[in-house]
Amino acid sequence: MARVSPIRTAEIVAVGSELLTPHRSDTNSLWLTGRLNDLGIDVRLKSIVGDDAADLESVLRLALARAELIITTGGLGPTVDDLTRDVAARVTGRTLELNEGVLEKIRSRFARRGLPMPETNVRQAMVPSGAALLPNPVGTAPGLWIETDERVLLLLPGPPRELFPLFDAQVQPRLAERNGAQRLRRRVLRLTGLSESAADERAQPVYSGFLSETIPIQTTILATPGQIELHLTAAGAGPEALDAALDSGVRRLADALRDHLISEDGRTLEQVVGELLEARAMRIAVAESCTGGIALGRLTDVPGSSAWVIGGIVAYDNAVKIAELGVSPALIEAHGAVSEPVGQAMAAGVRERLGADVGVAITGIAGPTGGTPAKPVGTVVIALDGPGRVVRTFAFAGDRSMVRVQSVAAALNMVRIALTSS
Amino acid sequence: MARVSPIRTAEIVAVGSELLTPHRSDTNSLWLTGRLNDLGIDVRLKSIVGDDAADLESVLRLALARAELIITTGGLGPTVDDLTRDVAARVTGRTLELNEGVLEKIRSRFARRGLPMPETNVRQAMVPSGAALLPNPVGTAPGLWIETDERVLLLLPGPPRELFPLFDAQVQPRLAERNGAQRLRRRVLRLTGLSESAADERAQPVYSGFLSETIPIQTTILATPGQIELHLTAAGAGPEALDAALDSGVRRLADALRDHLISEDGRTLEQVVGELLEARAMRIAVAESCTGGIALGRLTDVPGSSAWVIGGIVAYDNAVKIAELGVSPALIEAHGAVSEPVGQAMAAGVRERLGADVGVAITGIAGPTGGTPAKPVGTVVIALDGPGRVVRTFAFAGDRSMVRVQSVAAALNMVRIALTSS
Repeated sequence: MARVSPIRTAEIVAVGSELLTPHRSDTNSLWLTGRLNDLGIDVRLKSIVGDDAADLESVLRLALARAELIITTGGLGPTVDDLTRDVAARVTGRTLELNEGVLEKIRSRFARRGLPMPETNVRQAMVPSGAALLPNPVGTAPGLWIETDERVLLLLPGPPRELFPLFDAQVQPRLAERNGAQRLRRRVLRLTGLSESAADERAQPVYSGFLSETIPIQTTILATPGQIELHLTAAGAGPEALDAALDSGVRRLADALRDHLISEDGRTLEQVVGELLEARAMRIAVAESCTGGIALGRLTDVPGSSAWVIGGIVAYDNAVKIAELGVSPALIEAHGAVSEPVGQAMAAGVRERLGADVGVAITGIAGPTGGTPAKPVGTVVIALDGPGRVVRTFAFAGDRSMVRVQSVAAALNMVRIALTSS
Repeated sequence: MARVSPIRTAEIVAVGSELLTPHRSDTNSLWLTGRLNDLGIDVRLKSIVGDDAADLESVLRLALARAELIITTGGLGPTVDDLTRDVAARVTGRTLELNEGVLEKIRSRFARRGLPMPETNVRQAMVPSGAALLPNPVGTAPGLWIETDERVLLLLPGPPRELFPLFDAQVQPRLAERNGAQRLRRRVLRLTGLSESAADERAQPVYSGFLSETIPIQTTILATPGQIELHLTAAGAGPEALDAALDSGVRRLADALRDHLISEDGRTLEQVVGELLEARAMRIAVAESCTGGIALGRLTDVPGSSAWVIGGIVAYDNAVKIAELGVSPALIEAHGAVSEPVGQAMAAGVRERLGADVGVAITGIAGPTGGTPAKPVGTVVIALDGPGRVVRTFAFAGDRSMVRVQSVAAALNMVRIALTSS
């Protein structure tokens, strides 16, 4: 067997007009990406093309000029819509030939179900010359492995129930043999309580050196409301060396981002809070005003959260703050419902009333109305009563839903910090 | 203004290395496809590119050779990873220029939050020469509209909360003006409380005739946990005729699906419940056990919900059911916490304690643990106290999060039905 170089980069091309409607997305490529990453192969680009020969041809020609492995999914069916075989033969300069062995298998599949084979299914037995056949245990269309100019073009069926077993049985072993010990490893750092640019400003001095180290580490930064993710990836031979390099990178970033770092292994903020509470045999109760139950909803998303969540009071109306949380009407009168004294009274109230170890309160102005010059929309007070007393006033940007999401993240992070330092 | 031809085809390019991992998919393009279809524009191809200038450049060059409208999402952030502006300028032969107006807006956004602008954010004020600015009401990066050789290259931010309002306020009107009367109209019927196949069984006799009518109507059925959507679309030149055809189709479907129909215009269940409560000058309180605050979180998502939500009690622990909702320990002892008598006591308790007109209670077993042969995971009791008394026990399928979502939908739908018939 000729010496071949390992494959480092792949592109995925999903074929099918239904994937260009508002209601269907290509999810095969997520699964394939996981499998390819495990083999040390990075997915560099994905395309979604309709059942259109010209579009598919231009996408495949460009992909063949760029990536070492191109995987198409879909378009191998029996109808005239199914163009992947024809276009793949054209871009690799092959002719399509009827493969009697494949035809026989398709015929006998139909025969086993007592059916004649429709004439259109002959299309599925057409094979680009020189292609290796990858038997499909579940459907009629085999996968096709075409090598051309040091590149591999791989045609796979679209239905997940055919694609997944075919990949694992036929494609994974071939790629693993070719790539040897080559692997790609990933770490996800979750951060909260700072903006994307602030996170970047603190992380950049650390990660800017990552690419020039013995084992280079790629860093990507990712922002969603109330949360930032840093993705670190390293590729190469020897999983242990990659893990060690990533561990060291994670440690250095963690030092630079302390206080904002939720987890180094992708755990969510609510999971981390739950683990901290459970380790201390403590239980939490939450009083929510502007967030209206979202903080409690997020905490109780964690399976087994009944061990460390007692419950809470959603005090949307001031009357509930007074009657159920024991906040004095005079305090609300003097400072307003969105104020640090009222926040502290709510936190203490929910802790005492529900018999919790930790009480948290969120009161603020989520908008779109209710803001004043002194307390504009986005003003949110978060108070903690339990492991020490903390109260802070935040000024969040964004619309109603964004203010609510950021408030919940900030409240859970205050609990995390208080528990970590206690 | 020069006469310009309508736009019929578009390509969407999603930019961001995180979209090439196994864990994240591009969902913006689904939303955008819906909006573009409404304007009679067909999406022909989608690409997903990492934060890599060479790859983005080759994809954009090919797209500009093929489609009339190219929309990029993402890569407009403040970090060195964010390359879309630079590459777009290169492929259209423009220079990047600092726009003082944009810079000033970014600076004042930071100033309003009492923060200095990080130096990196200057990147977001760089604009390809000749590009039209599309103000971003939510974030720092404006959208950019670049016309080149009869084609439009449109750079939009990646975060959905910035992308969606920016598209609707700035892009939709420009495209609508350009495309004239050619339209694709859509109606969305929201249903709840029945399975996808049950919905289809009832709707199919009605919609089966839709395609052979003078103005054919396409019907698509779409299921998410706790909710079914029927999308009706009609395409053609006269918006009025399309609307009339769709109205007639909606009326006939609504008759077949009564009781399960939440809205005919895309309003959410919580909006409909809020409107019903507000019209009756009633206020609601919710007692949640297994749903842990999600029902209240959903109700308070609606702007202005303080007019009709008082608040609620999240009684995750039985002690809270007893102390805060006045459920008798003997009742829990006799029937269990997940039982119709306890559900009714919780609903009455939250209504009385919080002084509401309508009390709702949800108590159940969301899993993954806690199920018994008599009350397996998915058993959920929902009770209503207020406009009559109702209690029902449901058996929901699916995992923890699915059981919780379905429970909330069922509870809100019980309120809707009770208020509609009262």
